[in-house]
Amino acid sequence: MSARHLLSIESLDEAGLKQIIERACAFADGASAPEIDATVVNLFHEPSTRTRLSFERAAGCLGMQSFNIEPQLSSATKGESLTDTAATLQAMGMDCLILRHADDNLIFELAQKVKNLHLVNAGSGVRAHPSQALLDAAVLQARGLSPAGLKLAIVGDIRHSRVAASHLALWPRLGAAEIRLAGPHNMLPDAGATPGVTVHDNMDEAIAGANVVMMLRIQRERIDAEGWPDSQAYFADWGLSRERLSRLAPDSLVMHPGPVNRDVEISSEVADGPNALILDQVRMGVFARMAIFEWLLRGQD
Amino acid sequence: MSARHLLSIESLDEAGLKQIIERACAFADGASAPEIDATVVNLFHEPSTRTRLSFERAAGCLGMQSFNIEPQLSSATKGESLTDTAATLQAMGMDCLILRHADDNLIFELAQKVKNLHLVNAGSGVRAHPSQALLDAAVLQARGLSPAGLKLAIVGDIRHSRVAASHLALWPRLGAAEIRLAGPHNMLPDAGATPGVTVHDNMDEAIAGANVVMMLRIQRERIDAEGWPDSQAYFADWGLSRERLSRLAPDSLVMHPGPVNRDVEISSEVADGPNALILDQVRMGVFARMAIFEWLLRGQD
Amino acid sequence: MSARHLLSIESLDEAGLKQIIERACAFADGASAPEIDATVVNLFHEPSTRTRLSFERAAGCLGMQSFNIEPQLSSATKGESLTDTAATLQAMGMDCLILRHADDNLIFELAQKVKNLHLVNAGSGVRAHPSQALLDAAVLQARGLSPAGLKLAIVGDIRHSRVAASHLALWPRLGAAEIRLAGPHNMLPDAGATPGVTVHDNMDEAIAGANVVMMLRIQRERIDAEGWPDSQAYFADWGLSRERLSRLAPDSLVMHPGPVNRDVEISSEVADGPNALILDQVRMGVFARMAIFEWLLRGQD
Repeated sequence: MSARHLLSIESLDEAGLKQIIERACAFADGASAPEIDATVVNLFHEPSTRTRLSFERAAGCLGMQSFNIEPQLSSATKGESLTDTAATLQAMGMDCLILRHADDNLIFELAQKVKNLHLVNAGSGVRAHPSQALLDAAVLQARGLSPAGLKLAIVGDIRHSRVAASHLALWPRLGAAEIRLAGPHNMLPDAGATPGVTVHDNMDEAIAGANVVMMLRIQRERIDAEGWPDSQAYFADWGLSRERLSRLAPDSLVMHPGPVNRDVEISSEVADGPNALILDQVRMGVFARMAIFEWLLRGQD
Repeated sequence: MSARHLLSIESLDEAGLKQIIERACAFADGASAPEIDATVVNLFHEPSTRTRLSFERAAGCLGMQSFNIEPQLSSATKGESLTDTAATLQAMGMDCLILRHADDNLIFELAQKVKNLHLVNAGSGVRAHPSQALLDAAVLQARGLSPAGLKLAIVGDIRHSRVAASHLALWPRLGAAEIRLAGPHNMLPDAGATPGVTVHDNMDEAIAGANVVMMLRIQRERIDAEGWPDSQAYFADWGLSRERLSRLAPDSLVMHPGPVNRDVEISSEVADGPNALILDQVRMGVFARMAIFEWLLRGQD
Repeated sequence: MSARHLLSIESLDEAGLKQIIERACAFADGASAPEIDATVVNLFHEPSTRTRLSFERAAGCLGMQSFNIEPQLSSATKGESLTDTAATLQAMGMDCLILRHADDNLIFELAQKVKNLHLVNAGSGVRAHPSQALLDAAVLQARGLSPAGLKLAIVGDIRHSRVAASHLALWPRLGAAEIRLAGPHNMLPDAGATPGVTVHDNMDEAIAGANVVMMLRIQRERIDAEGWPDSQAYFADWGLSRERLSRLAPDSLVMHPGPVNRDVEISSEVADGPNALILDQVRMGVFARMAIFEWLLRGQD
């Protein structure tokens, strides 16, 4: 039997899904953290501060030691493949590899080859970012919002968002009532789509009646300059302004995986306002990653 | 009440100033270090080895966990503001942010916005480097030199030195007898100056009768090429040679915040000689930063 | 008396040599690791993932705290010499400096100048990489292969390999039966050579009858483009193929210090096959570095 991995929402079984969300909420609620005698390597092939630090902080809370590889400064220049790197890390006694990579599929291929190294996908191309979707689900659960009552609108650059991809895999499984996607034409996914998910080319239509609006960061680094819209025009069509928010129910919730492009996809007033859960998401991120390590390394109850 | 910060000497009250200097001396003298259960993030927007390592080492001596962000490799590329970064770090449960930045004012503005994150200024533009001034004061106190007996000459690139700026804020408050500044015309501060501080355009005049001479590194990175003097000519006018040192009292003390440009602002003989406190400053740096963390996180006695 | 260093195999006395190899085998065999209250700084002036992580992991296994300096991001830009950096680190209370540098001699010069900082050579130019040779010796000892029975062929870019240099210093002292070197003309060492070592310009001749074949990585970064061979031609002449391996005894062992250039110096089949010790070398690397720290900091029994 090979080591347990967190590759995607799709690869996670029902029990694992539930355990991670519930334990994240429990940690947020003050449950004591187990001591786990294990080691973690962070290997982020795309720059990230918040996700890497969140994993490193979560590991620290569990007494695990973290090691960082900076690919820009490392022996990737000597031409070693990721498979060989993973085998090397495992031979050094490393237990977990947290990997972020621009390639959609690399970590899935790697999982076929490693034996005793636990892999965690911290973002693979536009395909998956499962820890983000899990922590977002924990944030809503901690607020008492059940999936059956969720009407979620996801707005922005859906096509280039691995966060959106993982949410689209997650909510149908949790039994969400309704998912709506909205964004400019060139940022919407190809048709064919998921049952229970509707696609809208108009933001106001998409968010009408939603109780949670998730705004996505435009992935400047994944869109070529020509496809890149003017910020003001983008905000007018697809930005979450105070005015747009005011048309929703007063207790509507606003999420954003960060980092935020203020006044591009969301106004500062809304980002810093009482409906926004943005910092709750960051806070829960540490707890969700603790729950992920626990699930990886200590098994399911 | 917002979290305690160390932004500048000016922002530090009398009790804090005294406590930090005294506790630094106590740690240097073997006082046992408290265990502090807290986390530190180092964010250095200008390259630094010694200051960052000194903070990291001090944190380690107190049992605190350090996290490093390399801005060159981080999501600053995604356009997040420092305010948002700070809020994110705080939401992750980070307790202290050690910040170095080329901007004079950024950390002061940030302090208006953060709530429960302790900020430590590890160098802001040319305005402040308070931990350096505090550790230097502790070095002199540990040598038994009281401020009332101090005749301090600071020589070199005063204008571009945040170390000098913090010393100029510190010594009048501690009651130093005499402060003299000397340096080439384009490296002197604008007139107007501090009471009790004299400005000299001749090094020999400035150091005559001083019992402590503090040599400053020329800030190559802050002076454009045209204003940059020839090293030999600079040394002749403004360098601390053995010959110059020999004209002072035999127990005169020589300080330098490092890193040293040997034979530019100070001769190797002097830098490595018996009057030099340069490595004592490095040693005390760790103890002073332990005292800073203690003051930030455990309050004043 | 100055601090103990690990600079090269040649600088290591008989007792140290034996202790490190034996303790590495003991740790690999499950001997409990001592707790060592000390600090380590990793300063790698050439990019390396595996060696730096191996030292960092070994330090962690002994409860030692590691600090990393990234020279590309550090105050080397401020012109400080390595001697001053070392003195600074020592003043901060650092106990060990692990140094990798392109210069053959720098660490040997530095050892003349530091007092209480333990130096470990993690690779100096083409001259020495002692921890690699020691871990390789421990791997063979753990397999029950005594030096007296060793017939070792080292194949490839001998001239630019510090690993080969350290092996050539090690095996004659341990009493190896036979050492053969083989590689293309421009990658062989200058004549003059070591007693008991033969040099071959033909791989098949060199490996005939060997019980251990050590393949070396071509040091692309140390050979200019014009001297760089075509990979396929190189493999035909100097690569370890399955066919070549099949002409040796079935229990012949294959080593490689990694990272491997697959199908350049060694075929994937051989690298991943049952004769290869490549991952055993990585595994033993951590144990050997634990033994090195123990020898440096706790003395010889």
